[in-house]
Amino acid sequence: MSDHKTQQYDAFMVAALDQAHKGGDAGDVPIGAVVVCHGQIIAAAHNRRIIDADPTAHAEILAIRQAAADLGDWRLGGCTIVVTLEPCCMCAGAIILARIDRLVYGAADPKAGAVDTLYQICTDRRLNHRLEVIAGVRADQCAALLANFFSRQRAMGKK
Amino acid sequence: MSDHKTQQYDAFMVAALDQAHKGGDAGDVPIGAVVVCHGQIIAAAHNRRIIDADPTAHAEILAIRQAAADLGDWRLGGCTIVVTLEPCCMCAGAIILARIDRLVYGAADPKAGAVDTLYQICTDRRLNHRLEVIAGVRADQCAALLANFFSRQRAMGKK
Repeated sequence: MSDHKTQQYDAFMVAALDQAHKGGDAGDVPIGAVVVCHGQIIAAAHNRRIIDADPTAHAEILAIRQAAADLGDWRLGGCTIVVTLEPCCMCAGAIILARIDRLVYGAADPKAGAVDTLYQICTDRRLNHRLEVIAGVRADQCAALLANFFSRQRAMGKK
Repeated sequence: MSDHKTQQYDAFMVAALDQAHKGGDAGDVPIGAVVVCHGQIIAAAHNRRIIDADPTAHAEILAIRQAAADLGDWRLGGCTIVVTLEPCCMCAGAIILARIDRLVYGAADPKAGAVDTLYQICTDRRLNHRLEVIAGVRADQCAALLANFFSRQRAMGKK
């Protein structure tokens, strides 16, 4: 990694990857997220869609809700969210609604990514908030974790 | 109302409007939603962003989470969600993720609508789920409720 900004968020991506591993171990899709405020992790979560039978239980939504509860405010200005996979429409929308300052993500999501791939929700000038986006931090590691999970699922006859 | 489909969902929009009124009375933005399954309302919620200090606490997200808990499944196939305002990116994304069959909404949202106005997330063929959208049910009543709320907020010096 040569880029200064990418290096700056590397340790937080390691924490997000740790969450992703926990999610995978629990039988859910291995995606993890942390919310950082003043250099400290104030919230950490992994995907819990299957575990909780909740379609909204993506890592980002859970981490945002935790962070807001921690701060006692729905506005997460000053915060950075670090997530292993490019957010979908729901999560990109939630990041905007929470007025988060910065999104750092790992792997791109060619099927549903809503930050750079299919949509550019976090940088859309028509919406009432925009933020800095840093993509590709430990992208290969984040993508490999997902690829291995889905490969194992297929071997077990699940889809 | 002359359209058969619009009439079919009118009673459910009345229930969503009732939720919206409750949200407004509680000091939050008056937006309400219900989830309907086999002709019965299985979940009803209003916006609780301010009340709960939770940026994700839009009526749709709360109603979807309630419905999934009720059914014990993250997949809400067979369900219709009825909401007073055109969903934003977050909520349109959540509706897709929950595999909901049909969205019925009242007023369009010129600033953040992600179903017809700024984006067409619920009918995007690139995503892995699409659904029927019925717009404009009691649109004037839904819009007036919001306009009155914001007018009162301005009169009270809030924004």
